[in-house]
Amino acid sequence: MEKLGYDWPGLHARFPSLIYVAISGFGHTGPYKEKPAYDMVVQGMGGVMSLTGHPGHPPTRVGTSIGDIAAGLFALSAIGAALYHRERTGEPQKIDVAMLDCQVALLENAIARYVATGTSPGPLGSRHPSITPFAAFQTADQPIIIAAGNNQLFARLCTAVGAPALASDPRFATNDLRNTNHAALGEELERALKSKPAGDWLAKIEAAGVPCGPINNVAQVLADPHVLSRNMVVTMEDAEAGTLTLAGNPMKLSAFADPATRPPAPALNESGDAIRHSGFAGLR
Amino acid sequence: MEKLGYDWPGLHARFPSLIYVAISGFGHTGPYKEKPAYDMVVQGMGGVMSLTGHPGHPPTRVGTSIGDIAAGLFALSAIGAALYHRERTGEPQKIDVAMLDCQVALLENAIARYVATGTSPGPLGSRHPSITPFAAFQTADQPIIIAAGNNQLFARLCTAVGAPALASDPRFATNDLRNTNHAALGEELERALKSKPAGDWLAKIEAAGVPCGPINNVAQVLADPHVLSRNMVVTMEDAEAGTLTLAGNPMKLSAFADPATRPPAPALNESGDAIRHSGFAGLR
Repeated sequence: MEKLGYDWPGLHARFPSLIYVAISGFGHTGPYKEKPAYDMVVQGMGGVMSLTGHPGHPPTRVGTSIGDIAAGLFALSAIGAALYHRERTGEPQKIDVAMLDCQVALLENAIARYVATGTSPGPLGSRHPSITPFAAFQTADQPIIIAAGNNQLFARLCTAVGAPALASDPRFATNDLRNTNHAALGEELERALKSKPAGDWLAKIEAAGVPCGPINNVAQVLADPHVLSRNMVVTMEDAEAGTLTLAGNPMKLSAFADPATRPPAPALNESGDAIRHSGFAGLR
Repeated sequence: MEKLGYDWPGLHARFPSLIYVAISGFGHTGPYKEKPAYDMVVQGMGGVMSLTGHPGHPPTRVGTSIGDIAAGLFALSAIGAALYHRERTGEPQKIDVAMLDCQVALLENAIARYVATGTSPGPLGSRHPSITPFAAFQTADQPIIIAAGNNQLFARLCTAVGAPALASDPRFATNDLRNTNHAALGEELERALKSKPAGDWLAKIEAAGVPCGPINNVAQVLADPHVLSRNMVVTMEDAEAGTLTLAGNPMKLSAFADPATRPPAPALNESGDAIRHSGFAGLR
């Protein structure tokens, strides 16, 4: 951008109220600033990949491009802050978002666990690192998610799966004990769960007020009545490609419409004049 | 919140410029709106888990709480939009963010792949769904990430690993062919890569201009000179817990300081009077 004359100092001088947003692999400062990156590179370098997968299995990528998407979301948040700041003070600014930085920001409790223990946390399959039972469990047909985040939910879960004795088993009396003895508890729960299919168990466990759910594939997600009712599947009519289906907008803002269709991507420069003459984006 | 008198209509009447933000498992509308959720539940229901892991292996959670974090990031972005809108128009609004909706929004190209093919995409281990080679590859000591996103990068990679003939191999002539023949290509690349350790290969492949990187654990991330130079590891002095280490802020905004320390979490109501008398948050 600098070589093209579109760096922040140059554009700031020409358009004094412009907010400048740069997303790059490693950001505009630091020893790696010239290195190239793609999603996978920062998933690996930023630590998320070290936490994802099953112990002893090969490296596992998050199945969606979280290296790209996290950077987009932090940049979007930063843009909102910069717009608000400019409205309040008149001051524009430059935003420098690095994909790698955003991966570090996603590590959450893994940082605390490492600093507290001196040991880097590893992948845990489908388990939560510090809450048990909070994982995928096998039933007679397919696995389901059960997330019993405290003693009360655990006791309700044990009753719902027809194994109330587990709730008073001394191995499972507290969350710490359940964490330590997660393998034994998993076996006990799956012994009970393997007697019925997933659908039966989800109905029972949900009726007991314990958070649980299926593991949906993309077809099931796009057909889910709740997902559809939230307008999270929208369409776009594209002159070349026809009808395209895409995810809706999860930011449900009461002052804005949430239409079920989206306009197609504009052609090259289609909106250029309108943008340049709008006074928007500081171009005034 | 409704039972406590803190629902949006009630608060809006009392504080006419208040922006109201609600984050919940399933949102305030739709058939699942009363269901409880935790991170794992929406990772399973929203489809991300169906894309994460190795084919034929047990279900795999993203190793960080992306169900929680994605909802936080979309809410933060929405808050910026609402603040900007209120500055411009005076109009406040309610924001309703559902954790499940946010998981759907993360699915990106998996939706297009399903709609185009009629088949739900499955997990791919460490591979990218449509770019090859773009995965973790084994070396003499440990796996590394290589992301050769186009023909030119692929050719440079083949030369860097001492196997230039791969670039003219008809099985690997285009990205589509490399995708189809990813298993054969992976074997060829790993045959070359297994002759030297990861560090040697990263230096060579990087010198060739091909995006690549290590798979760092949390200890390595927190000691990385670039991560440290970007102030992505900060500390907090807590009266009870002592010095805590946490991730820095990846939103580098030029108009705001980016200190290397953070204040501790406030005690209950510690900032209450200041907030209530600030005129901030519409409480005026």
